[in-house]
Amino acid sequence: MKETVQIGLLGYGTVGTGIIKILQTNAHNIAQKVGCPLAIKKVLVRNPGKTRNTSFNVPLTTSIDEILNDPDIDIVVEVMGGESPAKDYILRALEAGKHVVTANKDIIAKYGKQLFEAAEEKQVDLLFEASVGGGIPIIRPLKQCLAANRIREVMGIVNGTTNYMLTKMTQERLDFETVLAEAQAKGYAEADPTADIGGWDAARKIAILASIAFNSRITLDDVQVEGIENISPDDIEYARELGYAVKLLAIAKESESGIDVRVHPTLLPHHHPLASVNDVFNAIYVRGDAVGETMFYGRGAGEMPTASAAVADIIDAARDIRHHVSSRILCTCFNQKNLSSAQHTESPFYIRLLVEDRPGALAVIAGAFGAQQVSLHSVIQKRRINNFAELVLITHKVPYASIKLAINTMEDMSVVRKVHNVIHVEAGEFE
Amino acid sequence: MKETVQIGLLGYGTVGTGIIKILQTNAHNIAQKVGCPLAIKKVLVRNPGKTRNTSFNVPLTTSIDEILNDPDIDIVVEVMGGESPAKDYILRALEAGKHVVTANKDIIAKYGKQLFEAAEEKQVDLLFEASVGGGIPIIRPLKQCLAANRIREVMGIVNGTTNYMLTKMTQERLDFETVLAEAQAKGYAEADPTADIGGWDAARKIAILASIAFNSRITLDDVQVEGIENISPDDIEYARELGYAVKLLAIAKESESGIDVRVHPTLLPHHHPLASVNDVFNAIYVRGDAVGETMFYGRGAGEMPTASAAVADIIDAARDIRHHVSSRILCTCFNQKNLSSAQHTESPFYIRLLVEDRPGALAVIAGAFGAQQVSLHSVIQKRRINNFAELVLITHKVPYASIKLAINTMEDMSVVRKVHNVIHVEAGEFE
Repeated sequence: MKETVQIGLLGYGTVGTGIIKILQTNAHNIAQKVGCPLAIKKVLVRNPGKTRNTSFNVPLTTSIDEILNDPDIDIVVEVMGGESPAKDYILRALEAGKHVVTANKDIIAKYGKQLFEAAEEKQVDLLFEASVGGGIPIIRPLKQCLAANRIREVMGIVNGTTNYMLTKMTQERLDFETVLAEAQAKGYAEADPTADIGGWDAARKIAILASIAFNSRITLDDVQVEGIENISPDDIEYARELGYAVKLLAIAKESESGIDVRVHPTLLPHHHPLASVNDVFNAIYVRGDAVGETMFYGRGAGEMPTASAAVADIIDAARDIRHHVSSRILCTCFNQKNLSSAQHTESPFYIRLLVEDRPGALAVIAGAFGAQQVSLHSVIQKRRINNFAELVLITHKVPYASIKLAINTMEDMSVVRKVHNVIHVEAGEFE
Repeated sequence: MKETVQIGLLGYGTVGTGIIKILQTNAHNIAQKVGCPLAIKKVLVRNPGKTRNTSFNVPLTTSIDEILNDPDIDIVVEVMGGESPAKDYILRALEAGKHVVTANKDIIAKYGKQLFEAAEEKQVDLLFEASVGGGIPIIRPLKQCLAANRIREVMGIVNGTTNYMLTKMTQERLDFETVLAEAQAKGYAEADPTADIGGWDAARKIAILASIAFNSRITLDDVQVEGIENISPDDIEYARELGYAVKLLAIAKESESGIDVRVHPTLLPHHHPLASVNDVFNAIYVRGDAVGETMFYGRGAGEMPTASAAVADIIDAARDIRHHVSSRILCTCFNQKNLSSAQHTESPFYIRLLVEDRPGALAVIAGAFGAQQVSLHSVIQKRRINNFAELVLITHKVPYASIKLAINTMEDMSVVRKVHNVIHVEAGEFE
């Protein structure tokens, strides 16, 4: 039986540092759980001369081959981030017969199929709990704890940056640009914030979650993506008044018409468990046919939470090594299911628009909706801006295509000055 | 390789029916996950003549030996409930070399050590996800997903009956007896509700969670237990006014002075993630040194949620059988840690008492607290009952022993008519 499980760590940034900290601080407890000690044999870095915390005392290397060719190394842990060369290194590690743990959502979302095939062929583990939801257990719960269920729906706040921004905009009534600048100053948003605020980070994560939940491969290209750039404090205030919080949700649902996967700002009723998830916290709501509603909540990013998830994977792989088993649970995309068209997605919608403030204007708008069989649940008109009136409408549940057609018609009408925003409403009482 | 994994089911009540439903409804999907079909070979019942859903078509038996001596049966699933004969059957199943899945919190909390030793000896799985939190994944997350962490604290709403009652008392301002009668009428509370409202059900569950979280065996005898019988609508209303929800919490914390495990009504600040867990929902909050705060939310009881957890365990055991591995993760109580004395438990306290309505009364009360070094955070006096004034106090964080002494002194004072209630406050801003 193995006396020490040896790890090769690729990357010594934020998460890499967190992993080293945990493996050193909790070494005794982790050794008890595994049945033998874990040791970091080598850490791949770009610049070995960089000043680092010397108390860790881990051997550095700049050569990936030194790790991949080392027969003592059992587990390769990839926390470099980015696609290249990380994907190539992961693939080579699998081909070298090493178990792989990664926190890399970009790679799992894009190359999952290829990598799982390589893991399958070599009968090694490929674990990626840290790729979604930071420290929140969600991959293993979906693959194991909820395995009895047909999952109907996975819906999450999986991007901390945008949740922090929307929380600030809600609580302090600040506008988008102010809050973005503040998030950047605090290090919550990057200099180029496109991946976060555009919804692309959340899209990669929901592609991964949907693939597991529905046992069918979903990639980034399958996700309809809309970011929060267009959300104003006015929208948030109207939503609040109507009983909703505005959240950037990553949503995956399966129905008879297929799998529907999207990321977009959403009005969530205040009583929904996700509505009170604030600041940088993440949460993932899962509905299964047997379990009903469940939710997993915690810190979706950061050095220690993400490292917590990666080390859990390391411990799992090490337990497998000790028990001479591997690849108990690999790719679970057994089926190829159809995607439903975004046009068919049904939901209530929130619409804010500016119309001429004259008799009959509302009748014209209502007529445009009526022509597309869109019925209205509530209407607020209370603010005048110059000679225009601001209208906020919430529709009953309708196909997205009908809303699209109604909006297109309205945009050509002289009575309509501007359609400010069209936002999905997550049903609740409207269903 | 096994072509079908065979199950012997002990018990055909609520949860047993749920398990049969799931294994039949989701048979194809589950077979994909395991790699082969699962089949229920036999169901142990007391009365085979009882009218049952015939569409399930499962073979019944009244003989436990028929199941234990059947070499085709790989997994024994115990959902009979109660201690006897369930404990004996589980032990015999383990000794017969069968993997065991159980939903029985009473048995795991009381006989965990003995059963795990039997499983260890025969190298078989003993899984019990359904014993705590119904459908909520919590055992596996603690044993695997959060394995990198030193867990500091586990705190849960783990009894649906009392949470339903407290929610009703809060939302509809009903008293304890009215709500209990309503819960009994709805089937949420049993005819003899002692185990639920007295906190004993929650105590068994926190004993199980604490054992896993702190890697040290905790049994029911180690848990300080107090039920909700003494909570009045007045307490709930005062708490609300002060910014708190009243919840029956099961709490396990580790500090330098040892492990502190208790169940009691608690004032939770409204912003705490557990404060908004209402009705029959359960949630378990876990704080680890790396992951920080996490929470797991869902339905803590009921046919399908509980069966969801049991079938997840069945799938896990079946995956082990297919991969010729077992007992990857058995007992994790590696250490024997000390319990800290309840007297040392520090927290703020809420105290409601009736005092003579005369000048100097408050000074006498304040003096009694001061003598025990108990300082007060807030005081409300606003209601007069006959010639007495009702006082509600919240203290700063103090040892329970000090509060106890102060209360004892006060109970002997002529100025004090009655000490109505002393309730723990879960810190937040007071810490």
